[in-house]
Amino acid sequence: MLNEREILPQEAPSVPNLASVSIPAAEEIPDEISRIVGTENVYTGPEDRIRHSAGQSYLDLLEKRSGSISAAPDAVVVPPSAETIQPLLEACSRLGIAVVPFGGGTSVVGGIAPLRGEFGRVISLDLVNLRGIEVDRRSLTARVGAGLRGPEAEALLGAEGFTIGHFPQSFEYATVGGFAATRSAGQSSSGYGRFDSLVSSIRMTTPAGNISTLDTPHTAIGPALREVIIGSEGIFGVIPDVDVRIRPSAEARRYEAWIAGGFEEGNEIIRSLVQVDRLPTIARVSDESESEVNLTMALPSGVAGDLFRRYLKVRGRSQGALMIVGYEGTSDRIRSQRAETAKALRRGGAIFLGQGAGKGWEKGRFHGPYLREALMDRGVLVETFETSQQWSAHASLYDRVKAAVAAAMETRGMKGIVMCHLSHAYRDGASLYFTVISSPGQGGGAESWPVIKAAACAAIQAGGGTLSHHHATGRDHSPWVESEIGALGVEAIRALKERFDPAGIMNPGKLIP
Amino acid sequence: MLNEREILPQEAPSVPNLASVSIPAAEEIPDEISRIVGTENVYTGPEDRIRHSAGQSYLDLLEKRSGSISAAPDAVVVPPSAETIQPLLEACSRLGIAVVPFGGGTSVVGGIAPLRGEFGRVISLDLVNLRGIEVDRRSLTARVGAGLRGPEAEALLGAEGFTIGHFPQSFEYATVGGFAATRSAGQSSSGYGRFDSLVSSIRMTTPAGNISTLDTPHTAIGPALREVIIGSEGIFGVIPDVDVRIRPSAEARRYEAWIAGGFEEGNEIIRSLVQVDRLPTIARVSDESESEVNLTMALPSGVAGDLFRRYLKVRGRSQGALMIVGYEGTSDRIRSQRAETAKALRRGGAIFLGQGAGKGWEKGRFHGPYLREALMDRGVLVETFETSQQWSAHASLYDRVKAAVAAAMETRGMKGIVMCHLSHAYRDGASLYFTVISSPGQGGGAESWPVIKAAACAAIQAGGGTLSHHHATGRDHSPWVESEIGALGVEAIRALKERFDPAGIMNPGKLIP
Repeated sequence: MLNEREILPQEAPSVPNLASVSIPAAEEIPDEISRIVGTENVYTGPEDRIRHSAGQSYLDLLEKRSGSISAAPDAVVVPPSAETIQPLLEACSRLGIAVVPFGGGTSVVGGIAPLRGEFGRVISLDLVNLRGIEVDRRSLTARVGAGLRGPEAEALLGAEGFTIGHFPQSFEYATVGGFAATRSAGQSSSGYGRFDSLVSSIRMTTPAGNISTLDTPHTAIGPALREVIIGSEGIFGVIPDVDVRIRPSAEARRYEAWIAGGFEEGNEIIRSLVQVDRLPTIARVSDESESEVNLTMALPSGVAGDLFRRYLKVRGRSQGALMIVGYEGTSDRIRSQRAETAKALRRGGAIFLGQGAGKGWEKGRFHGPYLREALMDRGVLVETFETSQQWSAHASLYDRVKAAVAAAMETRGMKGIVMCHLSHAYRDGASLYFTVISSPGQGGGAESWPVIKAAACAAIQAGGGTLSHHHATGRDHSPWVESEIGALGVEAIRALKERFDPAGIMNPGKLIP
Repeated sequence: MLNEREILPQEAPSVPNLASVSIPAAEEIPDEISRIVGTENVYTGPEDRIRHSAGQSYLDLLEKRSGSISAAPDAVVVPPSAETIQPLLEACSRLGIAVVPFGGGTSVVGGIAPLRGEFGRVISLDLVNLRGIEVDRRSLTARVGAGLRGPEAEALLGAEGFTIGHFPQSFEYATVGGFAATRSAGQSSSGYGRFDSLVSSIRMTTPAGNISTLDTPHTAIGPALREVIIGSEGIFGVIPDVDVRIRPSAEARRYEAWIAGGFEEGNEIIRSLVQVDRLPTIARVSDESESEVNLTMALPSGVAGDLFRRYLKVRGRSQGALMIVGYEGTSDRIRSQRAETAKALRRGGAIFLGQGAGKGWEKGRFHGPYLREALMDRGVLVETFETSQQWSAHASLYDRVKAAVAAAMETRGMKGIVMCHLSHAYRDGASLYFTVISSPGQGGGAESWPVIKAAACAAIQAGGGTLSHHHATGRDHSPWVESEIGALGVEAIRALKERFDPAGIMNPGKLIP
């Protein structure tokens, strides 16, 4: 199950050769920029510009595949050090150049779209050179450069025996700075904590100057500026590095698959665990549709697969909800944790499917994006969106969103499936992560997705959910932000932006309308 | 030990009769205010004004005892409902009346001082009528009116089988709105979480309008406005109610006392527990001075006390560090938690002193303020301040602050003691809570405390600590805030204030300089 890479052919996705993609001509970037960061750190070649022109949303990928992109940054600027960022932002403010901070380029909400706002020029500010790492073994914290990708940061920390424990699906490319700027949540966040909860202190370089928070474990001195910098999505400034809380590398790991009677039953098991503070490191429930797709992809064809399906039928679980439960830590802790969790799972009617499927999930945990490319090669529309809600309105939000998306697909003449899983649970509620897949040639494509997305956002807001539990706001959610945080909420963010970025050069068109 | 109320005589502290305290004449409050909230909700009598003139700091109490206070609000306004607050703030903005939000009146940092700023008039806005409570049993959250005092909220929730689990020393008087506005932390926060971490959603009424956060368990939509409202200390607006995460009332409780070899050894035990996520509900270590004082107060005089002291001496713990360890929850959970904790305590060289002393602590946990009044009756200077720091700089901060305060006391010719405890621990660090006690007639009093406080703040900042882990900023810390959060940090808070409160009427002179 779930190891899509092994199921689908491993050919490279048929993204066109970047050299053949057409892009608009670049505006000239003033010499002053090169003088600040060094000429060798300003890239204006088409390939660099294309690579920094979009993130990883369905529409982003579709445009790249079309062979012609409508917007790209005029240059990619790579500051050689954190110290060069402030003078660079000052110069851009003075010269009227929009700045889009760039980490791993994995935004699925248009967070790195090269929008110019009111300016004639826009640069992509690639933070790849901010790569420092410094461990405080006694406080279990580490200062980590914003430009380190997930695997790089984990390798450097792992060499000293530590882990951040942050593994979003974008892990392979996404950077530490991006994790902070977008309030990332990872697949193991139930155990290790969401990225925002792992930040012990943070710094931000804005056109108006530098701001940093104290690295004490807690302070009661006023509003939490840490929480203003986290989630700022590049509209205030640039995050050069982050102090994160680290843990000793897991001594042992165990991943299991279970199957619950249905999505609702599976979610209830998760609720019963989290509300007594006994959630495992990973806890995930797929709804019936997603479970069916995962089973179909995972089960071998022929007799073995048939036998397994028959077993599920006999156990009354042919329409069940697959669950992935994972434990990381010391062997002792895993043993006692597993005993309690397994009891709750059985009490909730779930049936153990073994560690094989769990291991399959682990192996394929970062492969979703590759699967998507492979599906797009076949003309399939495939895109995701996610939300969260309190337990008392969680099931009704799920129903409402599913129905709204199905209705929207129908208006577009699309055939396909809407599937969902719960992957982040809290004492008061949980996330819902939807995937929409539509068969090729049946009304999918660039015109249909905005219709579906609008229907999804409207249903989410009508059901009291948030526009995003961990994908962030970016460009794509900004039209709906005011209905989520209110006019005064938008004004508050705008007030901060005006103070940090008086010229308005930082990531225009993102987060707030 | 620690049950000071039983040790000291139970006479009422000799605060002068409020009717005999002299206060400045009140400025007239325009009729429009009465029209908005109702004439019966505007109090201008001297007793009401005096009761709302100051909090509970040493200097606050000293002034009240002097029989003459220098500043009081011109009126105490008690909105009959949350709906009247917005028109009230609008009117005050228009009329130029400063507004000081008032919850329980327990601030020890001048948070409710009736400062007028640039305005001729100031009112105290007492939120006592905001008393709603509404429980969501499925999501384990409750919407709680800002005006409910700790025991009131706990009684209402307790009747439905729940608790917030928030028990600061000010619990008996402090209100839920105040907990949120000041980022309160309680004695059981290790187990239940600090108050800010318990807030699932929050609302604020400002002169510019209302702002509210979504009650989803988490959102990645931009900076966390929740964390801008929490800790705002009344300078942006008024918090009418708070949605808090609740837990089932504890089925069982167990409090124990232990004695470690010294403060450092005790702190190391706490660090070893918290860094493997095994901190009990309450975990507290007193330094050698505080342990000595607590033992002296707690031990019976005569043979029994002598025997106990001899026992400590034999066990090499006569200069030890008292520890309070508390467990709350299900009996099963307490049993397994206690087994792990006791092992860590013994491994760290701590000796079990029994449950009696632990129970004594529980009984006296809210009596510190009464003890202080009793000591002040005897002419003693007694005041507290607190901070937090990462583990790698925790011991050096402790040494530095203790030395600085001792030196400051010497310059004032004061004899006394500086004692300290750790009461809030995190994976990355812990709090330090200092108490200064100076013998009567030896340079104490109103002139000395500011000298000591200044020395303490300077030492805290030199040692990288925060000005406050849970007492908040108020008036008293505001002169030092810029060195903690930086000029741009102050500017960010000011930008928010200008948007929420364009006329600047909300709690002038607090939080930011």
